[in-house]
Amino acid sequence: MALKRKDILTIRELEAEEILLILDTADSMKEIASREIKKVPALRGKTVINLFYEPSTRTRTSFEIAGKWLSADVINIAATASSVTKGESLLDTGKTLQAMHPDVVVIRHPAPGAPKILADCLQASIINAGDGAHEHPTQALLDLFTIRERLGRLEGLRAAIVGDISHSRVARSNIAAMRKMGIEVRVAGPSTLLPRLPEQLGVRATCEIGAAIADADVIMMLRIQRERQGPTLLPSLREYSRLFGLTVERLKKAKEGVLIMHPGPINRGVEIAPEVADGPYSLILDQVTNGVAIRMALLYLLTGGQPAER
Amino acid sequence: MALKRKDILTIRELEAEEILLILDTADSMKEIASREIKKVPALRGKTVINLFYEPSTRTRTSFEIAGKWLSADVINIAATASSVTKGESLLDTGKTLQAMHPDVVVIRHPAPGAPKILADCLQASIINAGDGAHEHPTQALLDLFTIRERLGRLEGLRAAIVGDISHSRVARSNIAAMRKMGIEVRVAGPSTLLPRLPEQLGVRATCEIGAAIADADVIMMLRIQRERQGPTLLPSLREYSRLFGLTVERLKKAKEGVLIMHPGPINRGVEIAPEVADGPYSLILDQVTNGVAIRMALLYLLTGGQPAER
Amino acid sequence: MALKRKDILTIRELEAEEILLILDTADSMKEIASREIKKVPALRGKTVINLFYEPSTRTRTSFEIAGKWLSADVINIAATASSVTKGESLLDTGKTLQAMHPDVVVIRHPAPGAPKILADCLQASIINAGDGAHEHPTQALLDLFTIRERLGRLEGLRAAIVGDISHSRVARSNIAAMRKMGIEVRVAGPSTLLPRLPEQLGVRATCEIGAAIADADVIMMLRIQRERQGPTLLPSLREYSRLFGLTVERLKKAKEGVLIMHPGPINRGVEIAPEVADGPYSLILDQVTNGVAIRMALLYLLTGGQPAER
Repeated sequence: MALKRKDILTIRELEAEEILLILDTADSMKEIASREIKKVPALRGKTVINLFYEPSTRTRTSFEIAGKWLSADVINIAATASSVTKGESLLDTGKTLQAMHPDVVVIRHPAPGAPKILADCLQASIINAGDGAHEHPTQALLDLFTIRERLGRLEGLRAAIVGDISHSRVARSNIAAMRKMGIEVRVAGPSTLLPRLPEQLGVRATCEIGAAIADADVIMMLRIQRERQGPTLLPSLREYSRLFGLTVERLKKAKEGVLIMHPGPINRGVEIAPEVADGPYSLILDQVTNGVAIRMALLYLLTGGQPAER
Repeated sequence: MALKRKDILTIRELEAEEILLILDTADSMKEIASREIKKVPALRGKTVINLFYEPSTRTRTSFEIAGKWLSADVINIAATASSVTKGESLLDTGKTLQAMHPDVVVIRHPAPGAPKILADCLQASIINAGDGAHEHPTQALLDLFTIRERLGRLEGLRAAIVGDISHSRVARSNIAAMRKMGIEVRVAGPSTLLPRLPEQLGVRATCEIGAAIADADVIMMLRIQRERQGPTLLPSLREYSRLFGLTVERLKKAKEGVLIMHPGPINRGVEIAPEVADGPYSLILDQVTNGVAIRMALLYLLTGGQPAER
Repeated sequence: MALKRKDILTIRELEAEEILLILDTADSMKEIASREIKKVPALRGKTVINLFYEPSTRTRTSFEIAGKWLSADVINIAATASSVTKGESLLDTGKTLQAMHPDVVVIRHPAPGAPKILADCLQASIINAGDGAHEHPTQALLDLFTIRERLGRLEGLRAAIVGDISHSRVARSNIAAMRKMGIEVRVAGPSTLLPRLPEQLGVRATCEIGAAIADADVIMMLRIQRERQGPTLLPSLREYSRLFGLTVERLKKAKEGVLIMHPGPINRGVEIAPEVADGPYSLILDQVTNGVAIRMALLYLLTGGQPAER
């Protein structure tokens, strides 16, 4: 079975079977990344454009490495230092890029839905690398991959997602991804940062982190993104940290061996204590490693690559 | 016949025969760009430096893709974020880059003549990717290519160039290129933005767009570049648009099937109506596609590539 | 003999034998750079990250070209436009990058010791491309290479280093490198910019440039870096230039054929007269050329390359 879609815009639109296909393909890709010579010719002669309207080290670098290890030509465009400054619309920028015949355009943009605008009128495959507070599907895929890699399964697990749920594209994509794969999700955070209708998302919501993490197999802490909030939603970092930070003490009340995740970059001592971030159950760096494998898998599948048989 | 020059600085210095050689070579290059695997080894082991002192998505990306599809090593230098901030002169920067043995340096610079300064003292081939209000030769070459591709010839055609003629490097290079290839050129724009001595350029000038486009085979609209003009030259964008914008109504009075061109990025609703920019006779995106082919041709020819026989 | 270390952090920690190994390897690399096809597969499938927290054309470009000529995948990160803006610590950035399995991380950072912080916790090889006023070891290695190439030896030579000795990482690394290889070093500069205990560095210090360069085989002029000094250390550029600038007149009192070096970018007419910088004994551009060879040698050796037998 090949991937039967042109773009990766949201987790919502993916079926469980497609998600499994991507995770399985990422397994093979991860093996490549562990070789002495990290290079296969799968995407030779293919062109990948990284079109980033927001700065990002980790995501842009992850896609760039993924493309290069597959032998693609990778072009980075930091859109603030570009013709965007001349006022061109996203759609015109997209059409212009399309006219150069890229195979894949990876886009990060502050506006929800920006990747969809490109997808609807470009022949190239579009990968959403984060669009405002909407979705970040590759993050959710790498998170699923990381959980499955460690626990051997997804179905029947319990996850707690803690932080600013309502403004987080990571939360939004992960909730959708986890629910599809049979993971039970609880979200926790200040009431001002919780979704208003959690049941519509298929999750339970609480203002007490203790309740959320009590029987979780996985705890996913979200980054406090000061740039995305007004001052009224969050009283103070100190207050937030006291109420919702993942500390060693709090972790003692969680399940033995609970997995700790965070999309990074972490605010040490704010949403997560350094001892927890660096502790034995932290998967934070595994997430980064697996991010490259997931992005290799997506680039490979979207450009017509056949998944390995299993 | 090979290209007998080290640099591409201006259209003025090119002979018609050289222009034809470049266009013919771009024909072959365009075929490569349409392949499943867009990659040939022609420039393997050659190094191309993109030295951009002004931001540009389309031109920098076009050169970068052109270089990579030919297997060159491509190095981007955004000169504002570089040792230029330490006050080094252009010539010292050029000599420093030369000492790293690049084969081609592509330069965009706000100062007219900057590419010539490099060309005179560097062994590397220099390509002018736009120098102030002076020239933008690769744009004119891709425009000729696009016209020839659509109409099968250049000699005897009539072109109208509309906009800020006197501050436009695109106009300047295109006028020279079109005149050399036997295209009759009329320019139109506000009197303050017209060349003072149009006959010296070999063109006729008018303040009425209707007169310019009446029997044209090609209409080339220029971008209104707010950054290059004082406020006194142009009363208002609305006024400009009303008098010189290419609208559907205006187009009805032009020749059946007239070709519409624009170097981009377009200001929709200012110099060109959206329906015209996206209409059936618009070549705007063909120009972008052909830009890659022209730049491949130049990189190829300047590094010693032999043109295909015809 | 292979290079027996993971990182290149300082000249101080290198033994003379290791320096010779690097210089000899750079000899072979320089030959590659002179070929028609500047490309060898030595680092195919290896990933080099250029992590630059300060702008730099020459050093970043030099490493990028070095990596690409060796067929490595090279990733540039300009750290100001990255997640560093989100407040992530250097160590967390380093760990994140490590999780993507680069083979080498080249770092430039304003803080002395920053490369060491990475080296201590990353598996990747770290190359210090300049850390504050601390060290710039690849500059010193390319300088040694350039001197040896021209004079055939290092042992027994006399060098004068002129300028802001106490704030210069170039001076610091060169003093250590030259002393190790048996070069006698004199430093000259305004008393406020001289090291307080020159004898601890193994050099002699003077406030008179004439005394320093009188019998030198090599004169190394340092760049006046306005950004690294308070206003009180240097009365004025004019004054500095008058007292310490290398002029044609001053050079007449130096040894016949004395070699002139400068790490660049030069301030023409400040620390060095244009006629001297461009004169027959100036090695300034050789330094740039050799910089690529040295960096190729380091990338090659650090990723397990075997030096050529001699």
